[in-house]
Amino acid sequence: MANPLTSDVLVDPVVLTRALVDIESVSLDEKVIADCVEEVLRQAPHLSVDRHQNTVMARTGLGREQRVVLAGHLDTVPLNDNFPSTVVDDLIYGCGTADMKSGVALALHLAATLPDPRYDLTFLFYEAEEIESRFNGLNLVAKHRPEWLAADFAVLLEPTYGVVEAGCQGTMRAVVRTRGRRAHTARAWRGVNAIHAAGAVLRRLEDYRARTVTIDGCTYREGLSAVRISGGVAGNVVPDVCSVEVNLRFAPDRTPEQALAHLHEVFDGLDLEVTDSAPGALPGLDAAPARDFLAAVGAEPAAKLGWTDVSRFAALGIPALNYGPGDPQLAHAPDEHVEIGKIRDGAATLHRWLAAY
Amino acid sequence: MANPLTSDVLVDPVVLTRALVDIESVSLDEKVIADCVEEVLRQAPHLSVDRHQNTVMARTGLGREQRVVLAGHLDTVPLNDNFPSTVVDDLIYGCGTADMKSGVALALHLAATLPDPRYDLTFLFYEAEEIESRFNGLNLVAKHRPEWLAADFAVLLEPTYGVVEAGCQGTMRAVVRTRGRRAHTARAWRGVNAIHAAGAVLRRLEDYRARTVTIDGCTYREGLSAVRISGGVAGNVVPDVCSVEVNLRFAPDRTPEQALAHLHEVFDGLDLEVTDSAPGALPGLDAAPARDFLAAVGAEPAAKLGWTDVSRFAALGIPALNYGPGDPQLAHAPDEHVEIGKIRDGAATLHRWLAAY
Repeated sequence: MANPLTSDVLVDPVVLTRALVDIESVSLDEKVIADCVEEVLRQAPHLSVDRHQNTVMARTGLGREQRVVLAGHLDTVPLNDNFPSTVVDDLIYGCGTADMKSGVALALHLAATLPDPRYDLTFLFYEAEEIESRFNGLNLVAKHRPEWLAADFAVLLEPTYGVVEAGCQGTMRAVVRTRGRRAHTARAWRGVNAIHAAGAVLRRLEDYRARTVTIDGCTYREGLSAVRISGGVAGNVVPDVCSVEVNLRFAPDRTPEQALAHLHEVFDGLDLEVTDSAPGALPGLDAAPARDFLAAVGAEPAAKLGWTDVSRFAALGIPALNYGPGDPQLAHAPDEHVEIGKIRDGAATLHRWLAAY
Repeated sequence: MANPLTSDVLVDPVVLTRALVDIESVSLDEKVIADCVEEVLRQAPHLSVDRHQNTVMARTGLGREQRVVLAGHLDTVPLNDNFPSTVVDDLIYGCGTADMKSGVALALHLAATLPDPRYDLTFLFYEAEEIESRFNGLNLVAKHRPEWLAADFAVLLEPTYGVVEAGCQGTMRAVVRTRGRRAHTARAWRGVNAIHAAGAVLRRLEDYRARTVTIDGCTYREGLSAVRISGGVAGNVVPDVCSVEVNLRFAPDRTPEQALAHLHEVFDGLDLEVTDSAPGALPGLDAAPARDFLAAVGAEPAAKLGWTDVSRFAALGIPALNYGPGDPQLAHAPDEHVEIGKIRDGAATLHRWLAAY
């Protein structure tokens, strides 16, 4: 296959978005798109390029005081009758248009066309963000090529619909178990019903008042939700176990340890087991490149409520935020699309920020 | 195979119990045992014998004023390393010893050895009690040979450990559903959590105070238990449905319709769907043969709390009770066994009652 990412395509982030969307790259099938991206990056004399599996890194070495990472994942969720792309008026439809090939296009366009940026730049085009963490390209880079991530600031081009979403909330899942004693339901009083006992768990969830926390002007709204409940042995048996799985979304002023202590407080006296956890990320908007970036965008940042790879940078001490042209509500939707105007706006903003040297 | 139920065996209910246990007869595999039983019944000149599938009926036609049914099922639950029988001191171990070949042995012993009983007798040895109702031999007889069930009183020789258990409670299963609206847990406030809403269901179950009802000296203790709960979409989704399955055990002074009205009262305002229901049976201890039977036993009756085939007789207007040598707690247990003394006591009691003509 001839590489569709020709120099004519690279100069226009809208055309480039379509070209990227039209290279199928469902998670774990990113070889072709990574090959195409690597090839065009190697043609740019101002970049040094390296690769780990299907994650491609390119960076300048201009001796600037500050280094900024621009990162985006190359994979998409499975196709859903939305491949290849189509255009209707101002909208490009197709799998990955919003999440996040329009963002990848912005980074790749900059990499190819801005040889003399204000900061040294590191571009990361990574694999397998949409699936389990152990496949995640950024995760693998942190493990096997940590030197690629050295930077003062990072922008993840995930869909935010042109808004700066700073930091991200942490997430913790835990199972709260109630126990009882089995008995035949015809002699229910001989048993202890674990499902009835779970009423106490649900009551605490109903009564829970979530915190709202403002950090660096970003407002994080926490939440504690039951996401699964199960219990029962047979239609004539008083059940001896009931499990309620809860998901706490916590503002980035809490560490996972503090979040766990909070859960233990909420479910005091109950058996609680953490099954899954990821730290949040503070917005970190006082680094100089971050302040410059916000000035270039010219709008207030908002809190990122979901969990994103931003948190992986935060874990390395690198302030990071999300900024991309796609609408996050459309991610993974069959009618996923991106507005051409948003791509142009994004490209102009990044250019304004990075070309000002 | 030679029929092991020889006349030497039939005269001794203990030996007969072992012989019946040693004919394997897991539900739907009752042909051999039914053949053996039918053959020995046909040898008794005072009995007329008929058969439907693997259910065998034998009855006297002595022109007595009253007719009594003695019934027992021939099948067992699956073997569980407890076949064939073994004897340790006063105990016969093996699959079906308690539930209910010792009871069947009492009836078959009487059928073979009591040609001139006080009442006309109908013996029913039926198939498939341990599995779904549509296979149940008594159910099939009620449908296809209802005339076999004509009687003034019935004794089911199910295990009661020598106690008279009268009537039985009804049972009703229903699913109570709460509904909400899905949302991402990072924006939980946009959704409505159906599992949190199920707290109201569990609260009513916790607060429920079950009735205790005494009828004909038998005390029935009702109960309402959650037997299953389920809800949840994914670890990051506020769930939109939660289902709580409940089981009401109700005293036989309520009809199923009244039981349903009661459930609607308890779960007022909540979505409720009945999935399964069986009526109870009043003890019906004032029929003459019942009074005589209680006198022969010489002990107070107790309420049957579980549901048994007694209810099928009650549905036909025939007072019925449970009385058998096995311990109901041992039914379906791998170490199922029956006390030889209880078999001898049972045989003596039934003989005292029925031979008194």
